[in-house]
Amino acid sequence: MKGKIDVAIYGATGAVGQELITSLVARRFPFASLRLYASPASVGKLVKCGESSLRVESSEDSTWGCDLAFMSAGASKSREFAPKVVGAGGVVIDNSSAFRMDESVPLVVPEINGNTLSPTNRLVANPNCIAAITMMAVHPLRQLGTISRLVLSTYQSASGGGAKLMDDLQEQTRTVLNGGVASSSVAPHPYAFNLFSHNTPINEHGYNDEEWKVIAESRKILDMPDLAIGVTCIRVPVLRAHSISLTVEFEGEVPAEGAVREVLMAAPGVRVVDDRQSNHFPMPSEASGQGDVLVGRIRRDLSHRSAINLFVVGDQLLKGAALNAVQIAELMLARNLI
Amino acid sequence: MKGKIDVAIYGATGAVGQELITSLVARRFPFASLRLYASPASVGKLVKCGESSLRVESSEDSTWGCDLAFMSAGASKSREFAPKVVGAGGVVIDNSSAFRMDESVPLVVPEINGNTLSPTNRLVANPNCIAAITMMAVHPLRQLGTISRLVLSTYQSASGGGAKLMDDLQEQTRTVLNGGVASSSVAPHPYAFNLFSHNTPINEHGYNDEEWKVIAESRKILDMPDLAIGVTCIRVPVLRAHSISLTVEFEGEVPAEGAVREVLMAAPGVRVVDDRQSNHFPMPSEASGQGDVLVGRIRRDLSHRSAINLFVVGDQLLKGAALNAVQIAELMLARNLI
Repeated sequence: MKGKIDVAIYGATGAVGQELITSLVARRFPFASLRLYASPASVGKLVKCGESSLRVESSEDSTWGCDLAFMSAGASKSREFAPKVVGAGGVVIDNSSAFRMDESVPLVVPEINGNTLSPTNRLVANPNCIAAITMMAVHPLRQLGTISRLVLSTYQSASGGGAKLMDDLQEQTRTVLNGGVASSSVAPHPYAFNLFSHNTPINEHGYNDEEWKVIAESRKILDMPDLAIGVTCIRVPVLRAHSISLTVEFEGEVPAEGAVREVLMAAPGVRVVDDRQSNHFPMPSEASGQGDVLVGRIRRDLSHRSAINLFVVGDQLLKGAALNAVQIAELMLARNLI
Repeated sequence: MKGKIDVAIYGATGAVGQELITSLVARRFPFASLRLYASPASVGKLVKCGESSLRVESSEDSTWGCDLAFMSAGASKSREFAPKVVGAGGVVIDNSSAFRMDESVPLVVPEINGNTLSPTNRLVANPNCIAAITMMAVHPLRQLGTISRLVLSTYQSASGGGAKLMDDLQEQTRTVLNGGVASSSVAPHPYAFNLFSHNTPINEHGYNDEEWKVIAESRKILDMPDLAIGVTCIRVPVLRAHSISLTVEFEGEVPAEGAVREVLMAAPGVRVVDDRQSNHFPMPSEASGQGDVLVGRIRRDLSHRSAINLFVVGDQLLKGAALNAVQIAELMLARNLI
């Protein structure tokens, strides 16, 4: 580890970019310099960074020289920018889907597969938010038996669509509460007090892009290339934490509820919220702004020979994006990979 | 069928009571008289009923004499009132859970098991909203094979908690949008832009009351007492339509998607909304106020040897409650059971 390093963020003004800055500062990430890049429209904006403010620069003026770049400006920008940073000798941690399924690129949730990082990796992919959050709850259960299938239904918040969609949800809701009819150029359907199937293109199997990513990326993170995963992705009118109703099926005997609870309680980055008496289980309101993934509704699935039900909630902008990216960087620093 | 009949509604001022009145008028239900009963606090209120207004009377002053009573004042009131109406010679259609699992009481969704109604039934139960709405999508699939298991995750709206919870959701949301912190004596948890596990007591298996009802009632409606059903019930910040992410597993060969679509399109009370090209699938905003249950996201579940995924949305107050009750009454009238 070479002391303090020069860091750049591409897509610094987006919802994830903002949380990257907050996480780097809050976790005292050892940067010597931090440069913020965004599209020309945001250039010159001042962004709070701890006690000071940083001026946003244009990605187009970037010299690409840095030790570490976080990229969160969308897949096409990542495809354009990442090779430039790597070519100039830097490491890239990419939040987009551009390289996630590239065999030469590790797709990392540090608590799960940090060991896949090696000195040859100059480009590391940060997973899809649902895959990262859900696998945080799934991975510890592998101590209890061989998982044969996952069934997920998601309750995804507005933040997955960026700061624009978060603002839009609030604006639409205000309009509806004032007796108006909401219209929007951001959300694909009415969003105030409404929900809709994730609005990404549908493939020939009837799955949308988001669902397809969850399947492929979860398999890669767990290194279980043939794991059966059924998934339905739904956008709900919640601001920034994603929820997942999850069934985990096992090949052998069903693990005892007590054992499930124990391995989850011992898992770093997981917090068990499961108070049946007071009906207190994971909720977006309690997961928002938190690094931990909340897990509850732990119970045997009585409809299956060997399955466990869980309800999982995590902050989409944190463990689902910015925090996980910073944790990858911390791990790479600790292992002298940057 | 004995021409026009005398009808009473107990719990007439609640959210379901109001929709009962609207449905009876809209469907030109042949009532000679309609009397509205509620708790003392509502007595004297005038309620619109088509062109005229009806004065709400106190349940305590009821003489119980009518041909048909709809009950929607909660399980304990139903237990008290229903025997009185039946004792006075009337028929009761009860929207509460009081009698649903009573072996001598049919639990009816007319499109599915209307044939279970017989002249000896003076008391008929109207199912839990999730059970009724979901079974509308499940029942037609029985033409295509033997169903071995259902897996449901629900997205339940405020109306399931009555008019009070609908008002509360809007009030809390207004407060939050104005920068305040919402507090509530109605919702058990923050509800604005939040979701929570259904707040009914949890049994020794870790299932809440709502989930337990869905399992037991779905089995009874389908007359499949051993059907495996996994279910997770979640309350989302939507006003009045419930959504269900549903996996239907079959014993034999998986039915073709085209065949699934065909039987659903032919099913009375079901409307297929499944446009992959334009990403248009069932949504609460389009199901609210509609009698039909909307079904879409029809696709093979690739994680299972023989399973189909569906996304189902229905108006909780209509097919999930009032409309189904009125349809039961219409069927009983047509078959001279009232």
